[in-house]
Amino acid sequence: MADKIWAHSGDSHFLEPDDLWQQILPAKQAERMPRSEKVGENEEIVHVDGKSFHRKLPKVMTAKGDDGLTIYELSVRPPGTRDPAARLRDLDQEGVWGEVMYSSIGLWSSMIEDPQLVREAAHAQNEWLVSEVQDVAPDRLVPAALMPMLEVDDAVRELEHAAAIGLKIVSIPTGSPPGTDDYNHDSWEPLWAAADDAGMVIGFHIGTDGTDQATAYRGPGGAVLNYVDTTYGGQKAAMKLVTGGALDRHPELKVLISEGGATWVPFIGDRMNEGYRQHGMFVRPQLSRLPKEILFRQVYASFQHDESAPAALWAMGYHNVLWGSDYPHLEGTFGHTQKTLHELFDDVAPEVRQRITRGAFEELFPHVSAPPA
Amino acid sequence: MADKIWAHSGDSHFLEPDDLWQQILPAKQAERMPRSEKVGENEEIVHVDGKSFHRKLPKVMTAKGDDGLTIYELSVRPPGTRDPAARLRDLDQEGVWGEVMYSSIGLWSSMIEDPQLVREAAHAQNEWLVSEVQDVAPDRLVPAALMPMLEVDDAVRELEHAAAIGLKIVSIPTGSPPGTDDYNHDSWEPLWAAADDAGMVIGFHIGTDGTDQATAYRGPGGAVLNYVDTTYGGQKAAMKLVTGGALDRHPELKVLISEGGATWVPFIGDRMNEGYRQHGMFVRPQLSRLPKEILFRQVYASFQHDESAPAALWAMGYHNVLWGSDYPHLEGTFGHTQKTLHELFDDVAPEVRQRITRGAFEELFPHVSAPPA
Repeated sequence: MADKIWAHSGDSHFLEPDDLWQQILPAKQAERMPRSEKVGENEEIVHVDGKSFHRKLPKVMTAKGDDGLTIYELSVRPPGTRDPAARLRDLDQEGVWGEVMYSSIGLWSSMIEDPQLVREAAHAQNEWLVSEVQDVAPDRLVPAALMPMLEVDDAVRELEHAAAIGLKIVSIPTGSPPGTDDYNHDSWEPLWAAADDAGMVIGFHIGTDGTDQATAYRGPGGAVLNYVDTTYGGQKAAMKLVTGGALDRHPELKVLISEGGATWVPFIGDRMNEGYRQHGMFVRPQLSRLPKEILFRQVYASFQHDESAPAALWAMGYHNVLWGSDYPHLEGTFGHTQKTLHELFDDVAPEVRQRITRGAFEELFPHVSAPPA
Repeated sequence: MADKIWAHSGDSHFLEPDDLWQQILPAKQAERMPRSEKVGENEEIVHVDGKSFHRKLPKVMTAKGDDGLTIYELSVRPPGTRDPAARLRDLDQEGVWGEVMYSSIGLWSSMIEDPQLVREAAHAQNEWLVSEVQDVAPDRLVPAALMPMLEVDDAVRELEHAAAIGLKIVSIPTGSPPGTDDYNHDSWEPLWAAADDAGMVIGFHIGTDGTDQATAYRGPGGAVLNYVDTTYGGQKAAMKLVTGGALDRHPELKVLISEGGATWVPFIGDRMNEGYRQHGMFVRPQLSRLPKEILFRQVYASFQHDESAPAALWAMGYHNVLWGSDYPHLEGTFGHTQKTLHELFDDVAPEVRQRITRGAFEELFPHVSAPPA
């Protein structure tokens, strides 16, 4: 149709097969990988590497809405959630062309204590991502590589492997794994250097701090408070890479913060500058550019519905605003993508729409083809 | 001078006399109030109500910059820090007319376990605020009343007292005191109702979560990360009053978030709306207006240097942007106020400058007089 708006998505997801490890790992390793067994309404037993432990299920898998479904159940209903061919039909219908795709099982790595097992699983999963996901439509689907993060050397090697097999972005949790330094510390420098060398985008998807972020608040307004709370981890990850000096040392390194919104970037930029200047005598390291300049140039951020996001670009000078569908999740636009895109872009200048729906994404991923005219 | 920009400040501070309690409380009560004794470089003994405990000094009082001074020492140097007459000379020179003034000893109340003592100290300090601060220039100085927050009934009674003696804003910590509910819970409803009845502004100054917020991050970039981190408590306090329904039940109640910036408001408004709509089946209470509308209409926010703040108004539709000097603190504009105001406002429309430097403040505090023409 003539008025269809095509957009790339800086934030999408897919769901792996339940027997992924059996498919891609030798049997002896596959049986050591985490496996969940639901017991009762709110609890699961996790079996991992010969041990088992009970834990409460995340709230998104237990709290039921008016229709009796959980957020998790509502988030895996679209046809293309698991099936790449069905997915492309969904995307075409919605008007989404290229998309960054995050795995759904990325958090398993923090449950395994054996770095070798994590390393080999990430290696195998990234091979699978190329052959079973990216290769289905290599000019559109941009799956994010999993990283073994227990030891920085492992992360470096797997990043190099991911780049060698053609992946373009690595997914890193917003919270560094237990036992490792925070991302502002120099111990992570080899990883940033490797990403810079490989031209690999660093992707942080919000909600990966490593805690059950749906339970921080209780009582009136809790659902909305918990929803908003998930954004802060992405802001903090970006700030750590700016203030710790990583992005200053690697001026070509690019970071994507997915699903956290975009209007926070000018805010955090100004706030970092204020701290950097007013508390200047306490600031280490000194940077070669102001923190806001580094943030604006090297950090990209995706939003779904935020009506203020285009103005972050045209009125506040932040050019790295990406739209994202969050397909197939409940927080995303599946089923109303065209309505959302028209509300966002019908009244803004064509170059602003172009930059947010296509330009910023294509700068990160120049191998992605152009949407239909 | 012809090009002097006059502005009201939504965020300023003063320092009480060291012997305030001896001046305003009966001797038997005064000696029960907290008193600090520095021991060594980084530690103090706090004596309070017959007990004593050691604690680490807050980092702003111990970490020294290149010039050998701490943030605290750098923040109390301006002549008018303690002296209202000298203060007015500082303000005239800087171009600041009206100002909201927060106390420096507001946090003592969480150290005292006896609600009666907290109640009587707050009562006496608020009387002192009127006679010794506000009355020096009642059309310019707007000191914020201290609140006894250990029991909501005490807070209600003191708010009514503060209103009766002519105070216009109450200062509430961004973190509710230990042992009390979070602000989204209904147990605080009597306080919001009392503020609504009295036409009293609710003031939250950032950095009052109740923790030493200068120590959350360590290592490279820590100073800037910790500086930015202080803003989040103000955002969360505002969200709790929106999502918990307090501001919806009291549509005339107004909240001021001081020193936390202003550009976060459109961002948080959009994000709350997204959660409210997309997770609608989980949201309690349902509100009569969207969260962003409530936030935009009833929450005011002050910034110092943020160059994106005017665009939050003219490009994102958030009209309750206030400027603030943060006098006399290091994070503020003392010594360069005119430079900052000109950088912020020389290139924006006159009505935007008017709203941010005067209009929003005068809406909260209509008794404040107009600056010199």
